[in-house]
Amino acid sequence: MRRDGRTNAQLRPVKITRGVVKYAEGSALIEAGNTRVICTATIEETVPPFLKDKGKGWVTAEYGMLPRSTHTRMNRDGRGGKPNGRTLEIQRLIGRAMRSVVDLSLIGERSFLIDCDVVQADGGTRTASITGAYVCFIDALRFAARNGMIKKIPQIDYVAAVSVGVVDGQPMLDLCYEEDKDADVDMNIVMTGAGKYVEVQGTAEGSPFTGNTLNELLELARIGIEGLVGIQKEVLKDEFVSGN
Amino acid sequence: MRRDGRTNAQLRPVKITRGVVKYAEGSALIEAGNTRVICTATIEETVPPFLKDKGKGWVTAEYGMLPRSTHTRMNRDGRGGKPNGRTLEIQRLIGRAMRSVVDLSLIGERSFLIDCDVVQADGGTRTASITGAYVCFIDALRFAARNGMIKKIPQIDYVAAVSVGVVDGQPMLDLCYEEDKDADVDMNIVMTGAGKYVEVQGTAEGSPFTGNTLNELLELARIGIEGLVGIQKEVLKDEFVSGN
Amino acid sequence: MRRDGRTNAQLRPVKITRGVVKYAEGSALIEAGNTRVICTATIEETVPPFLKDKGKGWVTAEYGMLPRSTHTRMNRDGRGGKPNGRTLEIQRLIGRAMRSVVDLSLIGERSFLIDCDVVQADGGTRTASITGAYVCFIDALRFAARNGMIKKIPQIDYVAAVSVGVVDGQPMLDLCYEEDKDADVDMNIVMTGAGKYVEVQGTAEGSPFTGNTLNELLELARIGIEGLVGIQKEVLKDEFVSGN
Amino acid sequence: MRRDGRTNAQLRPVKITRGVVKYAEGSALIEAGNTRVICTATIEETVPPFLKDKGKGWVTAEYGMLPRSTHTRMNRDGRGGKPNGRTLEIQRLIGRAMRSVVDLSLIGERSFLIDCDVVQADGGTRTASITGAYVCFIDALRFAARNGMIKKIPQIDYVAAVSVGVVDGQPMLDLCYEEDKDADVDMNIVMTGAGKYVEVQGTAEGSPFTGNTLNELLELARIGIEGLVGIQKEVLKDEFVSGN
Amino acid sequence: MRRDGRTNAQLRPVKITRGVVKYAEGSALIEAGNTRVICTATIEETVPPFLKDKGKGWVTAEYGMLPRSTHTRMNRDGRGGKPNGRTLEIQRLIGRAMRSVVDLSLIGERSFLIDCDVVQADGGTRTASITGAYVCFIDALRFAARNGMIKKIPQIDYVAAVSVGVVDGQPMLDLCYEEDKDADVDMNIVMTGAGKYVEVQGTAEGSPFTGNTLNELLELARIGIEGLVGIQKEVLKDEFVSGN
Amino acid sequence: MRRDGRTNAQLRPVKITRGVVKYAEGSALIEAGNTRVICTATIEETVPPFLKDKGKGWVTAEYGMLPRSTHTRMNRDGRGGKPNGRTLEIQRLIGRAMRSVVDLSLIGERSFLIDCDVVQADGGTRTASITGAYVCFIDALRFAARNGMIKKIPQIDYVAAVSVGVVDGQPMLDLCYEEDKDADVDMNIVMTGAGKYVEVQGTAEGSPFTGNTLNELLELARIGIEGLVGIQKEVLKDEFVSGN
Repeated sequence: MRRDGRTNAQLRPVKITRGVVKYAEGSALIEAGNTRVICTATIEETVPPFLKDKGKGWVTAEYGMLPRSTHTRMNRDGRGGKPNGRTLEIQRLIGRAMRSVVDLSLIGERSFLIDCDVVQADGGTRTASITGAYVCFIDALRFAARNGMIKKIPQIDYVAAVSVGVVDGQPMLDLCYEEDKDADVDMNIVMTGAGKYVEVQGTAEGSPFTGNTLNELLELARIGIEGLVGIQKEVLKDEFVSGN
Repeated sequence: MRRDGRTNAQLRPVKITRGVVKYAEGSALIEAGNTRVICTATIEETVPPFLKDKGKGWVTAEYGMLPRSTHTRMNRDGRGGKPNGRTLEIQRLIGRAMRSVVDLSLIGERSFLIDCDVVQADGGTRTASITGAYVCFIDALRFAARNGMIKKIPQIDYVAAVSVGVVDGQPMLDLCYEEDKDADVDMNIVMTGAGKYVEVQGTAEGSPFTGNTLNELLELARIGIEGLVGIQKEVLKDEFVSGN
Repeated sequence: MRRDGRTNAQLRPVKITRGVVKYAEGSALIEAGNTRVICTATIEETVPPFLKDKGKGWVTAEYGMLPRSTHTRMNRDGRGGKPNGRTLEIQRLIGRAMRSVVDLSLIGERSFLIDCDVVQADGGTRTASITGAYVCFIDALRFAARNGMIKKIPQIDYVAAVSVGVVDGQPMLDLCYEEDKDADVDMNIVMTGAGKYVEVQGTAEGSPFTGNTLNELLELARIGIEGLVGIQKEVLKDEFVSGN
Repeated sequence: MRRDGRTNAQLRPVKITRGVVKYAEGSALIEAGNTRVICTATIEETVPPFLKDKGKGWVTAEYGMLPRSTHTRMNRDGRGGKPNGRTLEIQRLIGRAMRSVVDLSLIGERSFLIDCDVVQADGGTRTASITGAYVCFIDALRFAARNGMIKKIPQIDYVAAVSVGVVDGQPMLDLCYEEDKDADVDMNIVMTGAGKYVEVQGTAEGSPFTGNTLNELLELARIGIEGLVGIQKEVLKDEFVSGN
Repeated sequence: MRRDGRTNAQLRPVKITRGVVKYAEGSALIEAGNTRVICTATIEETVPPFLKDKGKGWVTAEYGMLPRSTHTRMNRDGRGGKPNGRTLEIQRLIGRAMRSVVDLSLIGERSFLIDCDVVQADGGTRTASITGAYVCFIDALRFAARNGMIKKIPQIDYVAAVSVGVVDGQPMLDLCYEEDKDADVDMNIVMTGAGKYVEVQGTAEGSPFTGNTLNELLELARIGIEGLVGIQKEVLKDEFVSGN
Repeated sequence: MRRDGRTNAQLRPVKITRGVVKYAEGSALIEAGNTRVICTATIEETVPPFLKDKGKGWVTAEYGMLPRSTHTRMNRDGRGGKPNGRTLEIQRLIGRAMRSVVDLSLIGERSFLIDCDVVQADGGTRTASITGAYVCFIDALRFAARNGMIKKIPQIDYVAAVSVGVVDGQPMLDLCYEEDKDADVDMNIVMTGAGKYVEVQGTAEGSPFTGNTLNELLELARIGIEGLVGIQKEVLKDEFVSGN
């Protein structure tokens, strides 16, 4: 039995609420256990320089944590300089995940900018950000379609993310902070609704791990992603008209 | 009649919810119309250098806006350098307001750090921040008392803040964004529960204003502060034990 | 009697000298007691992006202190990053004050940039900066008129600034540094020659203050501004042709 | 046949030269095809704050590219601010790899700082950095042992890294730049001499990939690491006394 | 005849006024033609880390230009980052010049910090800064002696600086801005009262120059320095008690 | 006899190798004793703003040291801000030296960017950088001629640099680090093949020096430059076709 009573292959309770910020083209609050992240999607009529005049669009992301989202207050990351390496890594991960499931050639020369801001952090903030980001991104695409910016929703697949790891010698799904800080292996998987990998990132925090352990972790991740994509499908099934 | 149906001397609906972030020593969500601010209070066992070994404590504040709290997405203020002038001004204002209603010599050599993060901005974010900050600050003081850090709550008075201004030639209380952007005079008042001034900041955006106008605005502010302090008293009447 | 022998409603000796920096379109040295500020005005043939193609001009300001203008040497503000909050606040204050007394639609798409650099600081540097800035600004406008850049001097009114405060329980005009550091209430007033308010900024440093105190301070400020505007009128009465 | 005549499971020619920088406690030049990286190890008698008084040591790394190591000149990363996200990611990766194969409790309260500077970049600079870093790190540990700083070399295992990827639909080992820029899947594996994983980082650049592809890539990586560790063993078999 | 009527070996009129900033331990205004620089000296009871516990003192300098000291307004150097290369070069030059004429082992573990701020720039600001800095530095040493911080003034020699250059094919002394911008060779010499070199910095702006030209320029510099040291001696002959 | 057995007028062994970085338009490794610098030249089809539409080209330089090029590891200069004053000074020196021996009006509106990166530092890194930079710069000019970017090589003269100094009371040529750190006078001379001065930079580190000493140092420098230009001529006599 795990610290919070779950089995090793069990997700924390997940809830996604759409339309939580009225000015954004898409927005979602994702709650995964005690982790809470506000995700918003903004449409901007520009693309990065390397895409200029290529007829394609782009998706990028920013990630932040409120200073007191954590047990001990953190400084506001990036005040006084660039954000730290962890933040930059997460931002690039979220952006790549979103770009892997849309056809960028169908959204015109515009950018979708996803902001993920962690209000409360109990482990898995980067994976919750991806799972929540997908929902507000789809809402922004629907906004674009309703407003004649795009002809159709260029959605190829669903995408969600989850952490897995080895804690106390046991492979486990969806680590909370207490588990995460003691994990020997820490892994984040981004996977599509069709079960294909977008990202596989595993790190031995303590001692290196075997191929068998890797396989067990990948299987747990598959189970978790299935559950998360199911929730995304349920939440997104109705057209939603945000206030903006 | 105003844009949103209020009379000139009427506040927007205000709601304050305590305990919204489980790790903070005090936290509050303040909603004033469509403006929403998350306020948290953190206790740190240090004081700034100028207070070292003086036997006194300190209160300071940081203020931020989520990028999509506004109609048009803003860049994350301070990423890549110091926060801008407006942010620094607001941070110092919140800090001074909190320090004006506690006896700093009774809180020991420690600091209370208030974070105000705007989730949705519809005018009056700095004044809502002060009104909400007061609530989480009191909760953090009660936390300190419960945990033996301080002997008694060194609360001298209540403190709240409100904006007033001249819009379409009319003095008005508690401007929303649509009113604020057209205001000829823009004023923020910070006042104690006893009706004394902590801050008076008035600016002629268009043309300079007379002493009579100043007096009318100060009277509207007094009415607004009375209402806000009433809500603070109601919200704070029960001891609240946060999860931390 | 005050520390330096003045009565409570008495300004320090003020002297304004025009033309102190030969390359500037306008320049003035203001001496108010031991406070000395060099003010220069520069005309630039650009406007900020938000005014592009609007047919209007702009006035902005920068403020700095020489490192040894103060009792203890200060670091050069802004070296290694953005200027601090106090500097940014003062810069915006000077700019707003200048803009409040000219008709920006009559100066063409160009900017007037005012620099105020404090050589010696004995309290009231921000208010002396405003009072001095006005003089060099008018000289730069006259330069523009002489050189055919503008058709007429778009001067609506005079503008000056002064500090007032409560020291040892007494409301006083034009605080020197020794008074300022002990003040219970500290207030800066920017007012036009016609006696209208441009800015009212009052802060309780120690304990909050009553409406009566506010009224007494506003009356002292009015007296001070009258004196300062009188000096501006005297100093500006002759056309001055700078060397540039 | 690949662009440079290799088979899919073949490494580029690899050469490691020890002692290339006379002042460093350990140094190595690694050449992998046209990729060339100078690695140096520095011993510092301090540890990061979080290890203070814990009786343990630390290993950290910095990574840089000479501006003209690439086809098109790059700006010096980090000049004018923090290094970019890619650099920070690589630095943390190198540090974790080194820490995974030594017993940090046996090196005393001191830090080993590895610098990897790319002179010429033809793909695989991060993995070459790790493979070369290991060699100079061992030399620095031997330096420490010779000089009585540590009692024994706390070496647990060898560690090397290699890239694998899917190019033109084919899984391949050790991508050169021309292959890397066209890869559909890009993966970096850090593995010990005993064949255990330290890091698994795979990214779908184009479309998501299946579990079967993942397995094929992991097998190619295993083959490559075996070859690289063989070279490390050969190169390190003699004690080397650097000039310092 | 030169642009301003001087002969090739003639200095501009030079005037040095002591005690111009009342709070500084030493201060001087140097006027050399239209160039005007305010120099102040501050005594700080610390030394840089590399001199800790060595029983010696240090002298360092900062240099700045008011934005409108020049024909075209300059940005405030260093706001938003480090000062530019020219400023850093000048700062180090002033510091070295001051350190060359005092016995640092006699001033105790303290630092003298010289600030040179250019109010009006007509060429030769770095050399005027050195010549003026020397005067305020000596006044600060005398302040230290009067106040018992040091036993005697550890003055070894006088030091001054001057520019020389080749303009219109002619070697000339003490270039004004109009001459400086057209110079083929530009040289700054720092020399002691005894005629020894502290710094020789010559640059061919256009085409390289011969050894003969170098000798002619060094002779002109010698003449100029003699004149400047004569003025320093005259100005410093009386003990001066600053207001601080 | 000197620390390393040389006579006072003797250079260290110097070796220059062309074509060491395959992607650069020109590259050279210069070894002067134990000092080693990698120099590369990059051609960019832009000029700085002040040369826009003037029909002329430009040459600029950047300089860096690998962290462990020195006895004690240095921080990467410029990470987290602008490079330090020494780096900026050296960069400007290299650029001016290159510009002094080409006719910029014959290279079109393009820039040559020289990068000098020190791999191992044993004194004289700035002068070795200049001597090596010249070689890769000529190779880049030849690349430009071969590729039809310019009609002829606009080479006016050779240019090299060397340090001289007074150590243990003796004037010496080409100081190594051990000599440099004890030098009383430190001087860097940049001179053309025709024996004309481009730069003369001499500094009294300890006590000021006489005109006689200056003359002896200049004569030693002349001897050294002659030797270095001889090596440049030998190395550059064959056309070299880099791999790019």
